[in-house]
Amino acid sequence: MAEIKETKRLAVVLVSGGLDSCVTAAIANRDYRMAFLHVSYGQRTESRERKAFEEIADFYQVRLRLACQVDSLRQIGGSSLTDAKIAVEEADVSRREIPSSYVPFRNAHFLSIATSWGEVLGAQAIFIGAVAEDSSGYPDCRPEYYEAFNDLIRVGTKPETDLKIITPVIRARKSEIVQTGCRLGAPLHLTWSCYRSEENACGRCDSCALRLRGFREAGVEDPIPYGIDQKIF
Amino acid sequence: MAEIKETKRLAVVLVSGGLDSCVTAAIANRDYRMAFLHVSYGQRTESRERKAFEEIADFYQVRLRLACQVDSLRQIGGSSLTDAKIAVEEADVSRREIPSSYVPFRNAHFLSIATSWGEVLGAQAIFIGAVAEDSSGYPDCRPEYYEAFNDLIRVGTKPETDLKIITPVIRARKSEIVQTGCRLGAPLHLTWSCYRSEENACGRCDSCALRLRGFREAGVEDPIPYGIDQKIF
Repeated sequence: MAEIKETKRLAVVLVSGGLDSCVTAAIANRDYRMAFLHVSYGQRTESRERKAFEEIADFYQVRLRLACQVDSLRQIGGSSLTDAKIAVEEADVSRREIPSSYVPFRNAHFLSIATSWGEVLGAQAIFIGAVAEDSSGYPDCRPEYYEAFNDLIRVGTKPETDLKIITPVIRARKSEIVQTGCRLGAPLHLTWSCYRSEENACGRCDSCALRLRGFREAGVEDPIPYGIDQKIF
Repeated sequence: MAEIKETKRLAVVLVSGGLDSCVTAAIANRDYRMAFLHVSYGQRTESRERKAFEEIADFYQVRLRLACQVDSLRQIGGSSLTDAKIAVEEADVSRREIPSSYVPFRNAHFLSIATSWGEVLGAQAIFIGAVAEDSSGYPDCRPEYYEAFNDLIRVGTKPETDLKIITPVIRARKSEIVQTGCRLGAPLHLTWSCYRSEENACGRCDSCALRLRGFREAGVEDPIPYGIDQKIF
């Protein structure tokens, strides 16, 4: 059995610890050996997310783990997620403009680390749980962004490197992600999505709002704890 | 005078402290206000390069400075520049394959930071002193790599962001870079290029070899100190 497993192709999976990345890992796990990558970047709920990362990695018995710290995004600021002077807005899921939680060009930092690591490991894929349609409108969550990054990998790595970003949930609605996670037995109880709190999820920030709506529309109860004044979206 | 200066467009300039980035800054300085960005990534000569960065910034009276630390490249390893277990090779400037000093996908880390900072500052340009023809054959130093990264910036930043990478020396030979630097009064005496040493340049690594050949072909004496067993290329 061990030998068969080792012949599987290898994928770097970006695991923030949230719902989308957990379900993305569940999908990657079907066809790839997994190397888990987590990036802390000075976001408010950093240590809670790191805990979720380790617990999801334990669940899937992932040995190859890399946890990195990116300090530059906090030094640069400009986002409510990394700059203590900017408040995390109340959710408004019908909002059209880019919210204050947008971290400028954040995903490129994550994908650069994933590509460097993937090139050294000889991996064939990078999985990331970006979601376009049902997301907060971040420009670096759209399919064309990942196509452009794949072009960059093609020209920017060694000729023998054969590495490609895969975004299995990018066109899914949150409710479909919940359902896929349930179907694949993903450990949704270990995930963390809240932008504000590290104990009980606030239930009121963008990320909580999208998550709660997703579970509600999927007809599934969210297994993580929420604070008492949780809004209904 | 001060008022006229403030109306100039703003550019983030990646300044490693080496010859190419110093001359790139001299070029950017003609048309832009400059914000200097330096990235330490666990390379052997990190503190010497940082010193060169600060001195070049002082020379150009640059107030906006950001010095970042990228730990992930050392964690990942796979290069003689960041992995103490891999020796820095003797130079072979006629070599065709990618040398051991190649740091996998390194420039994407730098450009991601530059783009995040540029987006927050409202800058119009990112200058980087990449050199294709006369470089060590790194895949992320070729013009098509920067075209691909500009595509990524276009799709991956806010609609109102108008930021573009400029590579003014990418098609230049090292000797032309030296000559341009002399013509523009760039402080070449403040630069550092050696991959190995922090006091006297070794004169024998790839970076020293290319630099020395460039000065020789330009007919200019290299103003920095070298160790006594310097090779002639």
